[in-house]
Order: sequence, then C-alpha cells, then structure tokens
Amino acid sequence: MAELGEFGLITRINAGRMLPPGTLLGPGDDAAVLIAADRRVVVTTDVLVEGVHFRLDWATPHQVGRKAAAANLADVAAMGAVPTALVVGLAVPGQTPVSTVDELTSGMWDEAGRVGAGIVGGDVVSSAEIVISVTALGDLQGRAPLTRSGAQADEVLAVCGRLGWSAAGLAILRRGWRSPPTVVGAHQVPQPPYTAGPQAAAAGATAMIDISDGLIADAGHLAQASGVAIDIESAALPVAPELIDVAAALGVDARHWVLTGGEDHAFLGCFPPAVALPAGWTRLGMVRAGSGVTIDDRPHEGSPGWAHFES
Amino acid sequence: MAELGEFGLITRINAGRMLPPGTLLGPGDDAAVLIAADRRVVVTTDVLVEGVHFRLDWATPHQVGRKAAAANLADVAAMGAVPTALVVGLAVPGQTPVSTVDELTSGMWDEAGRVGAGIVGGDVVSSAEIVISVTALGDLQGRAPLTRSGAQADEVLAVCGRLGWSAAGLAILRRGWRSPPTVVGAHQVPQPPYTAGPQAAAAGATAMIDISDGLIADAGHLAQASGVAIDIESAALPVAPELIDVAAALGVDARHWVLTGGEDHAFLGCFPPAVALPAGWTRLGMVRAGSGVTIDDRPHEGSPGWAHFES
Repeated sequence: MAELGEFGLITRINAGRMLPPGTLLGPGDDAAVLIAADRRVVVTTDVLVEGVHFRLDWATPHQVGRKAAAANLADVAAMGAVPTALVVGLAVPGQTPVSTVDELTSGMWDEAGRVGAGIVGGDVVSSAEIVISVTALGDLQGRAPLTRSGAQADEVLAVCGRLGWSAAGLAILRRGWRSPPTVVGAHQVPQPPYTAGPQAAAAGATAMIDISDGLIADAGHLAQASGVAIDIESAALPVAPELIDVAAALGVDARHWVLTGGEDHAFLGCFPPAVALPAGWTRLGMVRAGSGVTIDDRPHEGSPGWAHFES
Repeated sequence: MAELGEFGLITRINAGRMLPPGTLLGPGDDAAVLIAADRRVVVTTDVLVEGVHFRLDWATPHQVGRKAAAANLADVAAMGAVPTALVVGLAVPGQTPVSTVDELTSGMWDEAGRVGAGIVGGDVVSSAEIVISVTALGDLQGRAPLTRSGAQADEVLAVCGRLGWSAAGLAILRRGWRSPPTVVGAHQVPQPPYTAGPQAAAAGATAMIDISDGLIADAGHLAQASGVAIDIESAALPVAPELIDVAAALGVDARHWVLTGGEDHAFLGCFPPAVALPAGWTRLGMVRAGSGVTIDDRPHEGSPGWAHFES
C-alpha cells in the first residue's frame, strides 16, 4: 500500500473497468457526475468494519467486497429502484497488501456489475483497521419509491430471497467448520433478489423493506413505519432443507435463523389482496390493524434480530 | 453508545433538524430519495480517520464534524455545483460517549446548513477507532460541470479562498501551542468559498479544482488532467500577515505553507483571458502549453503537498 500512494490506488480501482452507462464524469475529478433522468435520485450508505461485519479468515477480500456492495445495492432495489452507481470509501492499514485492496474493489465491481452499476468515485485513506464505506445511488425509472410506511391492513405479506442462510453460514464458521460450502457461501456473499424490488413496485406492492437485521426485526420496522400489525404464518416460513441439515448437525432449530438471521437481504413486501404475487415471491402472512409482529397470532419470544452496540 | 443502539443513534442524528428542501424521502427507510431537477447528480465521498485526519485533543467533535462535511461540500462546489445533501457513515468505538456522536453530527449539520444542505441518511457501526465517511450530492443547476481537464494555454490561473492557513494551524498545534486562535481555527474548521464554485462556472471558468492536497500538488493535477503547463507567479501568492507572524515565531517560511498546505479547500480555477475574474478571486499565474507546474518559470523544489501512505 505505502508504495502506491493514494492516487495510484484510485487509478487501480477502476483499471480495466467500464463505467456504468449513466456516468457523465467518472473518477479522477473532485466529484463524479451521473445522469438522473428520472429527476430524482435514490441514495443509501453502509459501513462495514473488519472484525465486526467481516473477517478475512472467514471470507476472501473479493467476497467481502461483494458483500459490501450487495448490502447497499439491495437497499436501493428495496426502494423499487435500479442501482446505478457506487462511491466507495476505503480505510486500510498501511501494511495491507495491494492485492487485498485490488480484490476488495474487484468484488465490489463484480457485484455492482450484476445490476449494471459500477464504482464512479472513491477515497482511500490510512487507518488501523479495514473500514469499508459504500454509498449506492439508484434510479426509480418513474415509479414511486417503495417505502416501509405504505402497508395497510388486509394486505398480503410476502418475501423474495433467502431467509436464514447467512446466519446458518455464520454458525458453521463460528463452530470452526467450512462446510457445506453452499451455506457458508451464503454468509460470505449474499444473493439479494435485486430485480424483485423494481418488479414488486411495478406489480403494485405498497411497502417494502430489505431484510438486513432479520425477518422479525425488519417486519417490526415495517409495521411501525406503516402503523400496522404483521402476522407471520409459521407454516409459510421457507426453511430450506440445507438449513435443516446444518441445524441438526449443530443441535439448533433452523427456524431461529429464518426468523432472526440478517444479511441475506431478502425483500419483505406488502401487496394488496387483489394483486397476484410476482414470480419468486412467497406469501408469508398478513397485514392487520394494530401494531407489532406476531407469529400465528402469538408474540415472538427472544431477540428479534441483531443490532449494533447491544451487549 | 452501547445503551442507545443503532436505531436510537440514527434517530438522534436528525432530531430537531429540518431536512434540506430537495428531500423527497429522508432518513428512516432503506434509502433516501432526493430531487435531481437538473437530471444530473454530482457525487463525491471522503473518509476521515481519527489520528490520521483529525485528533480529538486538537479539535472538538463539532469542529471535526464541520471539517468532514466541508471537505465534501467543497468538492461538490468545485464542480460548479450547489451541494444538496450528505449521507454519513460513522464507525465509532462502543465506549464513545453519545455526546461525542451528537457533536460530530451536529457539526456536519451546521456546516451543511451553510449551503442549504443537510444529512439525509446514514449508518452508525462499531469499530476500534473513529472513522467518518461522508458522501455529498450536488445540483449543477443547468451548468456544465467544471472539471480539472478544461484548461487551455493562455488562460489566467486564479484562486479563491485561503492558502496555507490550515497548514500553519497544524504547525502551531504540533508545537504544542494553541494560539493565535484564528490560525489554529483555520486548521480545525476550513472555510471553503462554497459559492465561488457556481459563480466561477457561471462567469465562464474553464477548469477548477478544490485545493485539498496543496497548491502545487493540485495545480499539478489540474495541469495533468488538462494537458497544459501552469506557471505560478510568486509575487502574486497571497501570504497572509497572520501566517508571516506565525512563521517567524516558528522559524519557518510562510510561503511553504501557501504552496504546499492542503485542507483549506480554496478553489483553483482557470479563466479565459477575456473573462473578468469574479469578486473574491485572485490572479495567481498563467496556463501555458506544455506540462508541469513552475513558479516564476522554475520547478518547485521539494514535496508538492501531502499524500496518504507516503513515508
């Protein structure tokens, strides 16, 4: 790192990469300039800290880069928007190998490339530990943003994407195992259903949230923002066979991961009863008058999900 | 910190604050939504690390917040744009007092408020050291972006804003002094000439750069991007009397701060010879055919400015 200097690093981040199509001015100036044809822009930011959000003995730098990008791209898609670009802040110790930074940013580029986005700007600075900050921008393409606050009683609650996989993968890594790789891989790199966000918006969804803290916790955020109650039907919970196998090996209940595991970035949406759920969405329960989240009309026992700074 | 939890913190950041006028959707959802009436959006990001970019024994958290916001707002303004909004990533140790986070974000709000912007989104996470990442968005209001690459031979080089003040303030703090407060204050909180960016663009400037690395270094970036040479006339260098006094007390040459000191966020612009410089701009030299930066036609000796990771 120390040899390259800041300018060399920023040049490397974009070497050989095609800037996303809406880029009027890319990296290398005081700021980037992007097309916002819709006359609105969606923006979100997330910070990942080594040892808190990722461990480089549990994931490669490329996987960490993909995960950092995915968390932000998912937030944009959960608004019903299409991600257009990322700007990236990297704080890394001076002794970090250049290859680590190359892999981190390469992972971000590869994940962004899955939705047609890319890195249009960044800053690389020196620090004691690796801190990755990603800001994602998005285009609503004429649609109204899908917020957390639009749900109404009698609507259908539905989910698209994985639940509990990342938590199961983390449980495996914590036990010191590395297998099964499909489940460990789900923790290393989430697979948000990016296109499901804009699709749900177009289909008539009234509210949506990216599940990053856990199903119960994020259903609670949606219920609170909308001023409604949410009931999840336990029989509808998608518990993948892979998770049941891992849970049996670890002596735990896979349903706990499905209800409280975050970081899979599934989307939780609400649809009017007359709307047919788009392909890929699974009915999970109902929106009701009232407040709070229940499972089969009973309160959930225990922690709803994972939160920073809580002991 | 640990008591509040992440959601409590994010609520605090915006408590009692008016969101900027272009905010269609503010904090509290998966992403914010902003007006981009111009059909383009300007975006830039900067990361500040405790111990590298700031020290809390040399500046209050409020001052650090202002400085972090200023660095990004200045980058937007140097494109000829008007800053509209910030999104903020904060990584802080769990034992950090809540008041420190309140002051940091309050400083960002106050600095953003000077240009009519505000914080529309953020993420607060746990880390070993304080890392502040700010992303600023801006509105070109129909103007072409003022890049580093538009300068042409025979144009006039001019500067608006302070040169060397932040470096002089840092030299004072490094010596263990705290006075004079006007110079120390210039290091703690820069005073970028925000409105000079859009004004210069409207007046016909052809190229501009925010001086964050130092006059010589950033003139070099502009010269390289434009494929021109830049000559600075030493007689035109604005060396403030306050800096001459401090330099005498420290036994150094104030001109060195003016030539190589960064972080004042003055703007360096190029203007066609027929254009009258807008109020507040000082002629500094000429753009010529060729490459590189000279002072009175001679190369500058020594380091052009400050760069990360260089030993």
